[in-house]
Amino acid sequence: MSEINPSSLAEQSVGIVAAQTAHFEQPLCLKSGAILPQFDLVYETYGQLNADKSNAVLICHALSGTHHVAGKYNADDKYPGWWDNLVGPNKPLDTNKFFVIGVNNLGGCSGSTGPASINPQTHQPWGSQFPVLTVEDWVNSQSLLADYLGIQQLAAVVGGSLGGMQALQWTIAYPERVRHALVIASAPNLTAQNMAFNEVARQAIITDPEFHGGDYYAHGVVPRRGLRIARMLGHITYLSDDAMGAKFGRKLKDTIRYSFDAEFEMESYLRYQGDKFAGEFDANTYLRMTRALDYYDPALPFDGNLSQALDKVCAQFLLVSFTSDWRFSPARSHEIVKALLDNELTVSYAEVTAAHGHDAFLMPDPHYHAILRNYLHNIKVGEPS
Amino acid sequence: MSEINPSSLAEQSVGIVAAQTAHFEQPLCLKSGAILPQFDLVYETYGQLNADKSNAVLICHALSGTHHVAGKYNADDKYPGWWDNLVGPNKPLDTNKFFVIGVNNLGGCSGSTGPASINPQTHQPWGSQFPVLTVEDWVNSQSLLADYLGIQQLAAVVGGSLGGMQALQWTIAYPERVRHALVIASAPNLTAQNMAFNEVARQAIITDPEFHGGDYYAHGVVPRRGLRIARMLGHITYLSDDAMGAKFGRKLKDTIRYSFDAEFEMESYLRYQGDKFAGEFDANTYLRMTRALDYYDPALPFDGNLSQALDKVCAQFLLVSFTSDWRFSPARSHEIVKALLDNELTVSYAEVTAAHGHDAFLMPDPHYHAILRNYLHNIKVGEPS
Repeated sequence: MSEINPSSLAEQSVGIVAAQTAHFEQPLCLKSGAILPQFDLVYETYGQLNADKSNAVLICHALSGTHHVAGKYNADDKYPGWWDNLVGPNKPLDTNKFFVIGVNNLGGCSGSTGPASINPQTHQPWGSQFPVLTVEDWVNSQSLLADYLGIQQLAAVVGGSLGGMQALQWTIAYPERVRHALVIASAPNLTAQNMAFNEVARQAIITDPEFHGGDYYAHGVVPRRGLRIARMLGHITYLSDDAMGAKFGRKLKDTIRYSFDAEFEMESYLRYQGDKFAGEFDANTYLRMTRALDYYDPALPFDGNLSQALDKVCAQFLLVSFTSDWRFSPARSHEIVKALLDNELTVSYAEVTAAHGHDAFLMPDPHYHAILRNYLHNIKVGEPS
Repeated sequence: MSEINPSSLAEQSVGIVAAQTAHFEQPLCLKSGAILPQFDLVYETYGQLNADKSNAVLICHALSGTHHVAGKYNADDKYPGWWDNLVGPNKPLDTNKFFVIGVNNLGGCSGSTGPASINPQTHQPWGSQFPVLTVEDWVNSQSLLADYLGIQQLAAVVGGSLGGMQALQWTIAYPERVRHALVIASAPNLTAQNMAFNEVARQAIITDPEFHGGDYYAHGVVPRRGLRIARMLGHITYLSDDAMGAKFGRKLKDTIRYSFDAEFEMESYLRYQGDKFAGEFDANTYLRMTRALDYYDPALPFDGNLSQALDKVCAQFLLVSFTSDWRFSPARSHEIVKALLDNELTVSYAEVTAAHGHDAFLMPDPHYHAILRNYLHNIKVGEPS
């Protein structure tokens, strides 16, 4: 972004945005067998839906993302939405062309129905009784949001990491409803190591004495300590060893004090990130987001054969991976590419040389953004409304 | 070990062993500036010290190791010492030839003076007042143990991981006192990522409500939750992604239950390891072991120039790394090899193809053990006593 001056940046923003809420009265049957009697999905849109409704792009968020993808709620907001570098007029995902939808996943803590919401049957927060959700459930609920918005077919579904799993799942569950899937820094399932990190994070939360079995709302506390540890751990896996080395290395804040205080800069960074997150995010949501990651495995019903799992897919694909991503390594994207090609689907794949690790999918790397821009530019849409 | 039948295995054991305690009345000045007024070191020995005392080998332990390297305390002990596959008659570190010493590091929780020991000045457990130790302090205390045993020069110092750092430090601090250093799966310092994992582990312990600022002994509790999380996390870093994949993969214990229970086999394994460790190990020791790892950086006084740091070293070296070790990767051993060669020292280096990750240094891999056996076989010692 360094070539762009501030005024042109402002012109590229979607500007001031507002979240909206879609209320669904119908029960949603979940993969677990549980039923959500009713639910809300909070969402934002950028750009205009065109006359034939052929320009809608759904953005699926990852573990801690929200519906607030781009723009600001107020001119003096410190930060815009989480993927603002990608989404806006003349940006790679160009809102002059596309009608972009951001949605907070079910079970989230940013407005959609989640564990902190009131259970209509008990008039208390759901807490521990809120069901465990899956990627499949999210995609089903998102398809209801598409119905609600009058969109029969999405031009594209876009997601990174866990969001990429949702994009993939859209093409499996609703092959006729999605023309393009952009699956970025993702994987067809988690490795044992990925799941192990999730398990440690969850155990930190669950064994926090203020977790109260998930019903901490009633106690007026939150399992802040556990959530903080979970987030600190997460941050290590989002960055590459090299990126941490380049950013912090072994740099001391001052001198060695032979203490357990934050003496190294990296320690301050992790503590800051952990504290910030623990003050903002809901622990029950964190548990469910990581569990959805663990469970996602479309090849499971096919004895691990991903090619068979993608048998009915007809979307076109762009897959992107990043060389330094050790969480969802390029090899995991290769698995998806192979399975798509086995089904003779149209697949573009780019392995981007990037130092930032898994977090690279959120960064405005020029090469990466050029790939997305070109791919999205070539998606055909109807006339503006 | 599969080629060896049980009876020959029994013959290779050092047999029934007993720990001994060396008591040091003299104050030990630590790198932090703190002074330990007196201290005990608990140790074990295997084999016989020869007439000219030229066959002594010191084994330095890693994070959670002890002085109990080989043999059993009782015939019905379930497990022998932690490096029993290496140390014994006719084993790679042959106790028919060598006099082998295992020692529990200062600050430990297996008998040497540590945070749970009584502070002679207060007659209470040291707890939070026990000083933060360094690799340099350990080596200094080990040199006092060598004095105590009447050993002027060690034939070799052997260590893996944090133990390898101690072996390296021996050659820097006491160049005349060590003829060979075997530095296995080690590094000249931690990377930012290594330190980040340590920081998360420590924060899990320190923020456990039962930590009580390190003075939990007085409260009759231990920060078991935090130590459990620390150990679970540690285990992920000891294994490679591939090793976890091969050992557990995505195997379920039974079926998916849409819960936060241990549903995957890997989850049960981590919980079991965490629970076991939290019931045995002292949290204050864990904090200090990880901090010693963080701080070790012999090149720091030389602006990061490791070659200069090794300027006075005269030992001969064997370095071993393992291909799948992402904690202390082969590249870290290469740094040490280069710095030793810059000083025209005699260095052997082996990069062993092994699937087990960092833990490979504890495994009886035939190729790895053959390398150690050959290297140790070639060390010259005097006549038996």
